[in-house]
Amino acid sequence: MKQKKFLLPESEIPTAWFNMQAVMPNKPLPILNPATHEALKPQDLYPIFCEECANQELNQKDEWIPIPDPVREQYAVYRCTPLVRAYDLEAALGTPAHIYFKNESVSPAGSHKLNSALAQAYYAKQQGITNITTETGAGQWGGALSYAAKKFGLECAVYMVKVSYEQKPYRRSIMETFGATITPSPSMSTRAGKDIITANPNDQGSLGCAISEAIELAVSTPNCKYTLGSVLNHVCLHQTVIGLEAEKQMELAGEYPDIVIACFGGGSNFSGITYPFMRHNIQEGKKTRFIAAEPASCPKLTRGKFEYDFGDEAGLTPLLPMYTLGHDFKPASIHAGGLRYHGAGVIMSQLMKDGFMEAVDVEQLDSFNAGVLFARTEGIIPAPESCHAIAATIKEALKCKEIGEGKTILFNLSGHGMVDMSAYDKYFSGEMRNYNISDEELQKYIKSADALNK
Amino acid sequence: MKQKKFLLPESEIPTAWFNMQAVMPNKPLPILNPATHEALKPQDLYPIFCEECANQELNQKDEWIPIPDPVREQYAVYRCTPLVRAYDLEAALGTPAHIYFKNESVSPAGSHKLNSALAQAYYAKQQGITNITTETGAGQWGGALSYAAKKFGLECAVYMVKVSYEQKPYRRSIMETFGATITPSPSMSTRAGKDIITANPNDQGSLGCAISEAIELAVSTPNCKYTLGSVLNHVCLHQTVIGLEAEKQMELAGEYPDIVIACFGGGSNFSGITYPFMRHNIQEGKKTRFIAAEPASCPKLTRGKFEYDFGDEAGLTPLLPMYTLGHDFKPASIHAGGLRYHGAGVIMSQLMKDGFMEAVDVEQLDSFNAGVLFARTEGIIPAPESCHAIAATIKEALKCKEIGEGKTILFNLSGHGMVDMSAYDKYFSGEMRNYNISDEELQKYIKSADALNK
Repeated sequence: MKQKKFLLPESEIPTAWFNMQAVMPNKPLPILNPATHEALKPQDLYPIFCEECANQELNQKDEWIPIPDPVREQYAVYRCTPLVRAYDLEAALGTPAHIYFKNESVSPAGSHKLNSALAQAYYAKQQGITNITTETGAGQWGGALSYAAKKFGLECAVYMVKVSYEQKPYRRSIMETFGATITPSPSMSTRAGKDIITANPNDQGSLGCAISEAIELAVSTPNCKYTLGSVLNHVCLHQTVIGLEAEKQMELAGEYPDIVIACFGGGSNFSGITYPFMRHNIQEGKKTRFIAAEPASCPKLTRGKFEYDFGDEAGLTPLLPMYTLGHDFKPASIHAGGLRYHGAGVIMSQLMKDGFMEAVDVEQLDSFNAGVLFARTEGIIPAPESCHAIAATIKEALKCKEIGEGKTILFNLSGHGMVDMSAYDKYFSGEMRNYNISDEELQKYIKSADALNK
Repeated sequence: MKQKKFLLPESEIPTAWFNMQAVMPNKPLPILNPATHEALKPQDLYPIFCEECANQELNQKDEWIPIPDPVREQYAVYRCTPLVRAYDLEAALGTPAHIYFKNESVSPAGSHKLNSALAQAYYAKQQGITNITTETGAGQWGGALSYAAKKFGLECAVYMVKVSYEQKPYRRSIMETFGATITPSPSMSTRAGKDIITANPNDQGSLGCAISEAIELAVSTPNCKYTLGSVLNHVCLHQTVIGLEAEKQMELAGEYPDIVIACFGGGSNFSGITYPFMRHNIQEGKKTRFIAAEPASCPKLTRGKFEYDFGDEAGLTPLLPMYTLGHDFKPASIHAGGLRYHGAGVIMSQLMKDGFMEAVDVEQLDSFNAGVLFARTEGIIPAPESCHAIAATIKEALKCKEIGEGKTILFNLSGHGMVDMSAYDKYFSGEMRNYNISDEELQKYIKSADALNK
């Protein structure tokens, strides 16, 4: 019987995260204070984030950052996650390619998000913080943080975009089951929320507004810190456990990936699976290709612009040097909520600029075609976000078939879609459609970033 | 770091199922033809079931039945499933007991049901069958069979109780994603369905009617067979992979269970986790206790009667010797749909009668109290069915605390509750309630079975 899964015992859970900032040839440009345009120091971030996270955010020195034992102990609930050979998908495609996927869907919260949530909750607890807060759109990050907070004995308040709060009751219930307090945003609990509700009592909320509410709660509440689930350097750092495990598991399989693929929202799961392999490109001249799969309707890497921009719609964050579609970009309402973000993380933006990675865009219908084929061959119903990685993988596998070359492809299955079945329903009913965006429209949005770079 | 999960490589997937019928001291009474009251032979079951399944159903001779390689290959998608030490649950309870659980929720369909679905689909394919059919209430079995059919290239038609079809769209979508055809029952596609709809156009369906429709489809369609997800001996046989793996994993943990617990509907996950350990009680005089956790509202083992009864409401099946509440028992609409069945499997009924196992009943609210504590400590949101096993486990663990004795408890986590979040919603909103049934009402139902035993 051929081996299907490559498992590692929990003693092989990495003992340190890999810090890409320490090895990349061109360091990222500094993060700037929007008022003074001065480079930010860790201390400038302390009012919002835990000190350790703020320090990690700007650490360009240490290649390895130790994972605290209590975090590793919590990782052991679901890690090491399986590396799986997708034999049946390969057979269905008739490709000579070897397709592997890292299955991050096995975590309690159903996605890779927990890798950083546990770390952030732990550091908060260590610092004597009692409450943490965040925003959530699709609900994956909110679910992960709720669970992590419970495990480290913290109170957790999540601002959930009102339209999601009403349309995704299962996600909300998951957060409640893990013990968090969920507030639909905009809410009357903050100045920012009140202002919006006063102006428009029927406002359905946005990620931008939910971020503003969570940050306001954090800075105005004693012993409360804000947390974020993607984009930032320390979040991507925590996700490198994915690739570090995958590296050992590919060794068990006797292969090394020619191509590594992940879907791309802010970059957290992409960085997690790619950085540990990419370091061998940087340090030893390996030639692995790294492909970010983004939605065609939110094409920051394939059609965005590299410049300074805000991380949020409202313009409350520092200025980040990144590929962006403009901070007031209004993404189409695709079902992959986790990919509807206007910018790419700072490190990845620099890596993209320097040619260490590439990007492709995927239409919504192609993503679900791929997801359904994957479910029927490999048994896991993928999250709409992960469907993008699968679509890009299938494309590469079919290229291999065309040229008759058996490459080794590894992709990250960032999460399962068990609580996204309404999206699959739409797909099967024929009601789902693609969303394209014209160059004219794109330029209109990008201007909001251009204005900051003059 | 203390070890949390006990894993086995897929090379350790059992190569044979354990057949309890071959070793139990008192064999089950024969299954009877309801018209002639003659004992059934395998051939009598061939019109409905695959021949191999019919043979296994009545096999009292072979202690081990080999698992075909193609089934083992498909098992490798998710097996061996993890055995997990519930340290954080233990800590929350302050119990000296060691609590372990076998995590069957990691299967593609989210529960143990796939263990038999894959076997049944394989045997159908082997026999040249092209179509399989079944009924589903809560949707766990339907989801598992849909996936198994797809993996072995069979068409799958599922009759889903109409009220579930409308109330559980996620379960329906999961089956569609795996490629099955779902028909709300009653339907116009069968005589049985037509009769019911003609009499009452607004009929909301029942498991009894859905079974009738599926059986009618199977016997009236060339190359089509019916499949069942619990109760029957061959289904329980296939589930023994759970306990066989758990036995090896408990060895890795250096322990042997004093108590083994599972929830109980028809008995499929209960038999799966218990039989392999129970054989040591029978053959070597071990003293492990085996506890079936059933809902207080459907108390077939704790308050039912051991006699011959039909397996379905409509009285289409052979007569089965079992603990029953009467085949026209109307279970309350608790959220654990998989436990709403009037009878216990034939083998387990005999084992219960002979004192090899015991049963407890669990109130609905207690089951969800237990499920939420488990989610917050161990990270997995359990299926409402599995919550019953957890509640029984907690009760035993608290007894250990009381008497200051550290017993080793193993329970089966039969499935996750990611698609049952509406039940958790009800719990958190305070709208959930217990359902008790009076002795008088119980006796009224049991009469329907009594009548068959005169």
